[in-house]
Amino acid sequence: MEFSAPYFLFLGDARDPLSVKTSRGIADWRPDKCIGEISMPDCPLTLGLPQITFAEAAAKGAKTFVLGLANRGGFIAPEWVPYLMEALAHGMDIASGLHGKVADIPEVKQLADKLGRRIFDVRHPTGTLDVGSGRKRAGKRILAVGTDCSVGKMYTTLAIESELKVRGEKTDFRATGQTGILINGQGISVDAVVADFISGAVEMLSPANDPDHWDVIEGQGSLFHPSYAGVSLGLLHGSQADVLILCHQVGRTHVRKLEELPLPDFKSCIETNLAAARLTNPDVIWGGISVNSSALGEEEALEYCREMSALHNVPCVDPVRHGTAALVDYILEHKGTTA
Amino acid sequence: MEFSAPYFLFLGDARDPLSVKTSRGIADWRPDKCIGEISMPDCPLTLGLPQITFAEAAAKGAKTFVLGLANRGGFIAPEWVPYLMEALAHGMDIASGLHGKVADIPEVKQLADKLGRRIFDVRHPTGTLDVGSGRKRAGKRILAVGTDCSVGKMYTTLAIESELKVRGEKTDFRATGQTGILINGQGISVDAVVADFISGAVEMLSPANDPDHWDVIEGQGSLFHPSYAGVSLGLLHGSQADVLILCHQVGRTHVRKLEELPLPDFKSCIETNLAAARLTNPDVIWGGISVNSSALGEEEALEYCREMSALHNVPCVDPVRHGTAALVDYILEHKGTTA
Repeated sequence: MEFSAPYFLFLGDARDPLSVKTSRGIADWRPDKCIGEISMPDCPLTLGLPQITFAEAAAKGAKTFVLGLANRGGFIAPEWVPYLMEALAHGMDIASGLHGKVADIPEVKQLADKLGRRIFDVRHPTGTLDVGSGRKRAGKRILAVGTDCSVGKMYTTLAIESELKVRGEKTDFRATGQTGILINGQGISVDAVVADFISGAVEMLSPANDPDHWDVIEGQGSLFHPSYAGVSLGLLHGSQADVLILCHQVGRTHVRKLEELPLPDFKSCIETNLAAARLTNPDVIWGGISVNSSALGEEEALEYCREMSALHNVPCVDPVRHGTAALVDYILEHKGTTA
Repeated sequence: MEFSAPYFLFLGDARDPLSVKTSRGIADWRPDKCIGEISMPDCPLTLGLPQITFAEAAAKGAKTFVLGLANRGGFIAPEWVPYLMEALAHGMDIASGLHGKVADIPEVKQLADKLGRRIFDVRHPTGTLDVGSGRKRAGKRILAVGTDCSVGKMYTTLAIESELKVRGEKTDFRATGQTGILINGQGISVDAVVADFISGAVEMLSPANDPDHWDVIEGQGSLFHPSYAGVSLGLLHGSQADVLILCHQVGRTHVRKLEELPLPDFKSCIETNLAAARLTNPDVIWGGISVNSSALGEEEALEYCREMSALHNVPCVDPVRHGTAALVDYILEHKGTTA
């Protein structure tokens, strides 16, 4: 699933900054691909992009109208439909990360078909997948794994990709969830594929590449989350990761939404992930720890990372506060030379 | 997904006994539910059931016409369609285990809709699933796990269910693949659900039950198979198994269709499965080993099972040759009293 830049971002009638965090992610991580934003009259939010009309966006070459917003239930609100029709009429494709499918709205689908525009409902994988082969592919791969869901795996992998680019390395971020796909313009929602094809989808998402090329693969879920662990294991096997980065939210002690289940400690969490990953890549290493330390003050966060790094003999950073240079230094030192 | 007995079994134009092994499974495991069989004129095979016409089957009360056969590609052959139409006309629903969907054949679908008959394409799960909750459910559960795919997990669990019935225990076989579903008349193809719902599907398949009731859950794949391990892990977490039975085909040394990957030994295989299973049931135990020993002679097979049992301190049987009494003895001894 791959859609075209530049993007024209739609904020709808959102009033809560959290509900447009996907759009904000696109604007933050791919500013060069964002041509402008548009919102409904009662929306008080902005991404800081030029606020322009459909005609202006079209004149500036906008290729895709992006719904990077959330609402209760994840459906396409009827009030948004006129905006979708305008986008199509102005020559744009549509990409949406909502549960409800844009392609299921008859009038939008009909106009898109008539005009030859494409609709990307990125939560709903399309195309033919194959089961995973487990066969070794060329190129190097970094995968984020977590002590839980929603602990910063996407942010961490996007930040590592940026840092690798700064170092002049060949690299691609590989998105496995709807927000990552909207930010990146391509990817596969691996938790939405048929169960038999989880590892196969990841093999397709991260194909053979140059021996010195880095795929930085967004993780999903956790091997210790009883709802989603199957997806996480398929990701481990399909990615054939050379390097695992362990992600954690400081202060989280129990599995999200399952308060009776304590989180694993870093050591047993990474050992379990490494053991599973070795099935398809016996040379996988632990490349470091990435934490969301927002529960701590600046000094405490630095101290926490220093302690964890000393305890586990790998770098530990909060990518928002400290960047990912320490992780990338370590990765390049241990896996940087082409075998 | 649940369809009604008695069944009228269709052998089509099959010429290879292997291609009707699902029908044979139904006739072997659920003889009381099979009213008869019908095949095309050039089919040399029989299940040993009464060979009767549609009218005779209808007169005997047949409720479901079952396509328990395979062909290259798994599609519904055009030559079979007249038989499907006859079945509908004679008051039967249709159940099929093929990849191709009966419901996708317009004339069959139209007639079924018109007559109010149901079509069960058991490889294609229907209905609304939820993500797994991980919350403990009442009742006891046995799950088959494997050193690989296709090592006898379905046969083992069906045989354990039979033996538990002989002992007067309350028990249900829970089918997780198309053959098991056709044999059992109900179940969910867990490898065909959306990846996010693997463990949730198993929670739905094996709901809370009496404290002294045994669900015997058919396993799928293997934690050590890089194509399917995600499904196997979701099954472990969703089943909350009290007892794992390790299945293996004697003589198999490498992962099926991935000849470069050696199989794990029993000890590391079961340890990995137990560690994963403990996430949702800390009290899970290893209940024994079930092997397909067809590569060995009778004496060798007995000797092999004796050796494995002595080595691992759990019973080891070939359920075809030795039955599952030793496994059930061990299970009832260790988990038989209601906590």
